[in-house]
Amino acid sequence: MASTIPNEKASLEPLKSLVEKELLEVNDLISKTVESSVDLIPLAARNLMSAGGKRLRPMLTLAAAKLCGYREGPRVIPLAASIEFIHAATLLHDDVIDDSALRRGIPTAKATWGNQASILVGDFLFVKAFQLMLQDGSPKILDLLASASGRIVEGEILQLTTQGDLETTQEKHLDVVIRKTSPLFEAAMGVGALVAESPPSHVEKLMSYGRFLGVCFQLVDDILDYSSLSATTGKNQGDDFRDAKVTLPVVIAYRAGTLEEKAFWTRTFVDQQQKEGDFQQALAYLHKHNALSQTLEIAQSYSVSARKCLDDFSEAPEYPVFKEILQFCLDRSL
Amino acid sequence: MASTIPNEKASLEPLKSLVEKELLEVNDLISKTVESSVDLIPLAARNLMSAGGKRLRPMLTLAAAKLCGYREGPRVIPLAASIEFIHAATLLHDDVIDDSALRRGIPTAKATWGNQASILVGDFLFVKAFQLMLQDGSPKILDLLASASGRIVEGEILQLTTQGDLETTQEKHLDVVIRKTSPLFEAAMGVGALVAESPPSHVEKLMSYGRFLGVCFQLVDDILDYSSLSATTGKNQGDDFRDAKVTLPVVIAYRAGTLEEKAFWTRTFVDQQQKEGDFQQALAYLHKHNALSQTLEIAQSYSVSARKCLDDFSEAPEYPVFKEILQFCLDRSL
Repeated sequence: MASTIPNEKASLEPLKSLVEKELLEVNDLISKTVESSVDLIPLAARNLMSAGGKRLRPMLTLAAAKLCGYREGPRVIPLAASIEFIHAATLLHDDVIDDSALRRGIPTAKATWGNQASILVGDFLFVKAFQLMLQDGSPKILDLLASASGRIVEGEILQLTTQGDLETTQEKHLDVVIRKTSPLFEAAMGVGALVAESPPSHVEKLMSYGRFLGVCFQLVDDILDYSSLSATTGKNQGDDFRDAKVTLPVVIAYRAGTLEEKAFWTRTFVDQQQKEGDFQQALAYLHKHNALSQTLEIAQSYSVSARKCLDDFSEAPEYPVFKEILQFCLDRSL
Repeated sequence: MASTIPNEKASLEPLKSLVEKELLEVNDLISKTVESSVDLIPLAARNLMSAGGKRLRPMLTLAAAKLCGYREGPRVIPLAASIEFIHAATLLHDDVIDDSALRRGIPTAKATWGNQASILVGDFLFVKAFQLMLQDGSPKILDLLASASGRIVEGEILQLTTQGDLETTQEKHLDVVIRKTSPLFEAAMGVGALVAESPPSHVEKLMSYGRFLGVCFQLVDDILDYSSLSATTGKNQGDDFRDAKVTLPVVIAYRAGTLEEKAFWTRTFVDQQQKEGDFQQALAYLHKHNALSQTLEIAQSYSVSARKCLDDFSEAPEYPVFKEILQFCLDRSL
């Protein structure tokens, strides 16, 4: 699928090593914060938040702070935890909205405790996210996180009202991805830079890095759903197809497809009438039009844009870590 | 049902007159705040927020500020709007959780746009509530509102895990009511007092007033659901029964009931097997054990407690308004 095969795949290990100590504190704080006299809350929240999540977003905050010269200090810990809480809250609500039974191969809170509990525990995590960010109290950081939360939700509503629209264009589809997935990556980076009291130009550059990285991650996720590698990354091959979720590979294959192919996609995605063998057929159409490799190329272009945002930081010891995150994102699809 | 019949029913008119000017500003701000480039958001939010809501909570904030000597100023407007947004967000999520098709006789957002939109628009309103309170930025007010939001959600989760439990006691049931319904009334009063920079003892007294008023309102709501007056108050008689929602009148009637009656309540509430004539039978059992008048007596005792919290304010010109709110609450059931 990719044009070059590197000797060794990039990994998240350099990032993990860089923020190892702080991430332990973030995890402790997450555990403490979900305590409640109402038993279901810590049960459901811990189930979600310990279920193999990569903690990518809080790690980005911790690492971005270091990249900007923030050394030791307690401020960044609740802020990084807050970002993970926003992420977890959106996951809980997404599972209800997508009617998902599994996430990373593990039963969702929705499957275990039902829709009602998932909605309310999601609300609880949202509130906790706000309480954690209030501990810092910096108006700029509060505004950034609140506005990111608002944009994520707007992006999700936009996705809801356009989903199943096979006639959409690449540009429109990417707009939804940027509006839904990028704000939290962007905010994760921005909070790290702000806590380190970086100049506005640096804050902006790192937020752009986060925005492009977010798109790159989402597109590779969408590729993986049609890839035989999905098992190794904890994704379930074919989930997006079964849920009739229109992702970029499908948009590309639909637009390039014959009338017969368009009828296939309409039956399986719009009418949601799927039968045995349809997933294999979908794979064949995706490969016929190089839809997965075209999606990867677009992901690569976002990765290049993200990398350019790091130019001002090339002297920092943390610089290679941020480059490797981008490579890790792309290498997942190999 | 009540022991005395006043000549004239108390109303919310004195409260409305007191805050008329400011409430217009709050309503304007609410309209502006739900604007979004994603069309569904203002549609769904306006549908909910203009659908005959009493705006009771923001009016309490505006009036509490006046009671504490706050005269003119812009701070209280976004805070009062924020409280209405928290309320609206919980209503949207409640409608999904209770699977309600109507609210105050009008189709719910859930019925019109589906569960998914209701969850996400609820999230959007939550975020907007936080953005509005951030405009003020006073740490005490932010903490108060964030912690109230957290307690509401905890109360709702507690209700979810105990609902349908006919064996509960009056005390346990009232605990759920206090935890779920009171925090926002409490916060509405507290924010008004804090914005007026009242001394801590006054803030506390007015928050207690809000807490007791909240219980009083909820109990009278629960009575109205079994009352022929419900149509005039915009409630639908029998909704709680059909939804098998265990409210205080049912708790009282169940505990006092014969084995045969207990079997009736178990069939209709736990097994949710309801047939024609069951609602009339439920009414007969409730009346046999004076469950509605007992509930009203408990509501009255909360009203008395609330009134006592006003003692320090008896010289203020706004004092009679707050007394009348309590009487209005009780008079609704007559």
